Amino acid sequence: MLTVTTYDWVPPPPRGFVRDLRVRWALEEAKLPYRVATVPFVPFKERGAEHLAHQPFGQVPWLTDGDTTVFESGAILLHIAKKTGTDTSDVIEWVFAALNSVEMPVVPWTIFKFSKLDGEAVSQVDNFLDLRLQRMEPVLAAREWLTGAFTVADILMADVLRIVDRFDGLAKYPACKAYLARATARPAFAKAHGDQLAHFAAGDAKRS
Amino acid sequence: MLTVTTYDWVPPPPRGFVRDLRVRWALEEAKLPYRVATVPFVPFKERGAEHLAHQPFGQVPWLTDGDTTVFESGAILLHIAKKTGTDTSDVIEWVFAALNSVEMPVVPWTIFKFSKLDGEAVSQVDNFLDLRLQRMEPVLAAREWLTGAFTVADILMADVLRIVDRFDGLAKYPACKAYLARATARPAFAKAHGDQLAHFAAGDAKRS
Repeated sequence: MLTVTTYDWVPPPPRGFVRDLRVRWALEEAKLPYRVATVPFVPFKERGAEHLAHQPFGQVPWLTDGDTTVFESGAILLHIAKKTGTDTSDVIEWVFAALNSVEMPVVPWTIFKFSKLDGEAVSQVDNFLDLRLQRMEPVLAAREWLTGAFTVADILMADVLRIVDRFDGLAKYPACKAYLARATARPAFAKAHGDQLAHFAAGDAKRS
Repeated sequence: MLTVTTYDWVPPPPRGFVRDLRVRWALEEAKLPYRVATVPFVPFKERGAEHLAHQPFGQVPWLTDGDTTVFESGAILLHIAKKTGTDTSDVIEWVFAALNSVEMPVVPWTIFKFSKLDGEAVSQVDNFLDLRLQRMEPVLAAREWLTGAFTVADILMADVLRIVDRFDGLAKYPACKAYLARATARPAFAKAHGDQLAHFAAGDAKRS
């Protein structure tokens, strides 16, 4: 049995974007049964030894598969891809492209958007992100999915672009936006996203 | 035959840090023969269709292995690990930890250091990097290498920490610093690093 561990609760802003979504989505696409376990959402400094033993940065998610536990959403999605025989060389390179080339500017860009910052440092990260989106635009205009069929690479690329789209950062990139719409129209995304929202809403009920 | 493609020349600041170093280092560790090919270092907007066909972001390196071409340093190092049977689950998760959890704040942090910027946005990225290094410190204090033996995960983690160390960002993290010293004391690092410096110096001679 596969188990995805995520927080028991998070405040509203990250809901729908906590990275267990990527794992849920991949498991739904692969039609692999799984259950969801939780770790307490406590301040970063209070995350204990058991949490750190599974996820050394004190974050979520991790996947338990029998005796194996895997952290990092990229590694977890490749683990799932391996189970379905879809961890090919081109999928692996696009997984890294999503996480090391595109998400690298996306996360600081998002931090700055949440904090409503501007200035020279913010502009430099804006430019860094634009460089990446300018290159993704012709790639995504020319193909339906990154490697032919829909794979875990598309889950990661789409989930990274969702964060940008949340702050309207795809307005100049219609092919990126259309790709994101194609990806999130998939039933497996809707199921994963709905389940994450319901999971954290149930956490509200337990807290109140 | 394996071929690593990098730029024909770069200006002095990035020398010793261009990502073909990671590939050279991994190939030296694996004792796999390889040759080095080049693509012209031209302004970002002028990088042509042939370059983009190999590396869609217009960057380097890429690896050619027979009919296969692989971009993204993480994907290339996993490709090399697969050839030597060392692409295990724990290696894969630490490869992603290096590139998606640690390098993510490292690159914007470095951009800000190069530009000598400060302010609120810079502080937020400083804090993001500190969170990661605070978590890596006990991990690296407790073990010689990330997964027991030295693997491609250590090449990537060490190369990411080298960028931080360049701007003295490891001063508060002695275990990270000691790990970096262990990694860069390896003969394969010295060979890869020396070869990259010599390669770009030869580019100077051709330009003059």
